[in-house]
Amino acid sequence: MTPNTLLKQTTMVVKSHHQKFIDVTGMISDYTQRALISVGLCHIFIKHTSASVIITENADPNVHRDLQTFMERIAPEDDYLYLHDSEGRDDMPAHIRTVLTQSSLFVPVSGGRLNLGRWQGIYLWEHRAVATERQLVVTVSGLDTISGVEV
Amino acid sequence: MTPNTLLKQTTMVVKSHHQKFIDVTGMISDYTQRALISVGLCHIFIKHTSASVIITENADPNVHRDLQTFMERIAPEDDYLYLHDSEGRDDMPAHIRTVLTQSSLFVPVSGGRLNLGRWQGIYLWEHRAVATERQLVVTVSGLDTISGVEV
Amino acid sequence: MTPNTLLKQTTMVVKSHHQKFIDVTGMISDYTQRALISVGLCHIFIKHTSASVIITENADPNVHRDLQTFMERIAPEDDYLYLHDSEGRDDMPAHIRTVLTQSSLFVPVSGGRLNLGRWQGIYLWEHRAVATERQLVVTVSGLDTISGVEV
Repeated sequence: MTPNTLLKQTTMVVKSHHQKFIDVTGMISDYTQRALISVGLCHIFIKHTSASVIITENADPNVHRDLQTFMERIAPEDDYLYLHDSEGRDDMPAHIRTVLTQSSLFVPVSGGRLNLGRWQGIYLWEHRAVATERQLVVTVSGLDTISGVEV
Repeated sequence: MTPNTLLKQTTMVVKSHHQKFIDVTGMISDYTQRALISVGLCHIFIKHTSASVIITENADPNVHRDLQTFMERIAPEDDYLYLHDSEGRDDMPAHIRTVLTQSSLFVPVSGGRLNLGRWQGIYLWEHRAVATERQLVVTVSGLDTISGVEV
Repeated sequence: MTPNTLLKQTTMVVKSHHQKFIDVTGMISDYTQRALISVGLCHIFIKHTSASVIITENADPNVHRDLQTFMERIAPEDDYLYLHDSEGRDDMPAHIRTVLTQSSLFVPVSGGRLNLGRWQGIYLWEHRAVATERQLVVTVSGLDTISGVEV
């Protein structure tokens, strides 16, 4: 049977909070499984310039606290460092922290599921000092059967 | 009608300047629309190790100045910090700044257009203290109709 | 002749060493050529949260030493900076260095080969102070002939 190429895309709205890590692994994983793509790639894109999507450890919440502390040290909220402050003193550090991390990421799809490592989780990292809503565009593409996968 | 899978790829040459942000959103957007792909992904890759492609705020030029200042603080031009200086004192900081940002990025394509957020622009960020030309490889792939997009 | 869409995926195990750069360009390039995809993209994903895949200069090993020194300066091993230390004092810096770089990257495929710049190499960057094995998931997708590539 010849495999068919498929592509599915959706927009998800995620509530984010004050410099927190929002675990989106479950919702991305559910969507990927419903897409019925056996082998391929899942792309997650955030439509904002002051929040990131990242992959990091999913076991110890202290990892997230330490990452936040690191960013506060390296790109602090400091009125004297930045020219751009139109939306407040957390605005420019949020842009820097986004550029240092990522606006989008990919996870391979294998056997119809996200092929993440055991300790990898997918997080929306909110860099603004506000509670807000963020839009993620999720695109899953690949083949519906596994023929022709190994070379 | 069964959607067809399409893939278009081209190389663009962009003039870059002394540690500046070159807005390439328009040229990437034009190419994507001419590719006649309804839903999919656009990939932008830079074939160099001392300039990046990034997504950041497109409204206030001070954001770009502050990003440049941040990089000069975190990865300064300083003869005492680096072993590698074969092309000048701006050489090694340029490699570091590229690794801290990105050599390539993706934007989802929806409704035949780049699905960027309102404040997101795509920039070539030149990290060398020279005016030069940089090559971008742009690949757009996806389906030519939207059937089967939502799951 | 109508081009066929192809997708090939495999898992590679790479031995990594104590904060070193492991050149994986050759193995990724070989796999891409065997995949018989004329034009498309190659994705490399690392299934771990304390090692990265990056693209950087392939000529002077001092570039890698300077990158390592930079990370030791910016995200040092320091007992007082981090809450998370369950696997040792190199653990949390390894997570930070991974988030500052990348868990996955893409290279365009053109003419059946990786379309890298002359000075670009692909590296696994081990951030832990151990020798270990790391899993890479490599996915190559695209068209088997070049028809329809230029728009």
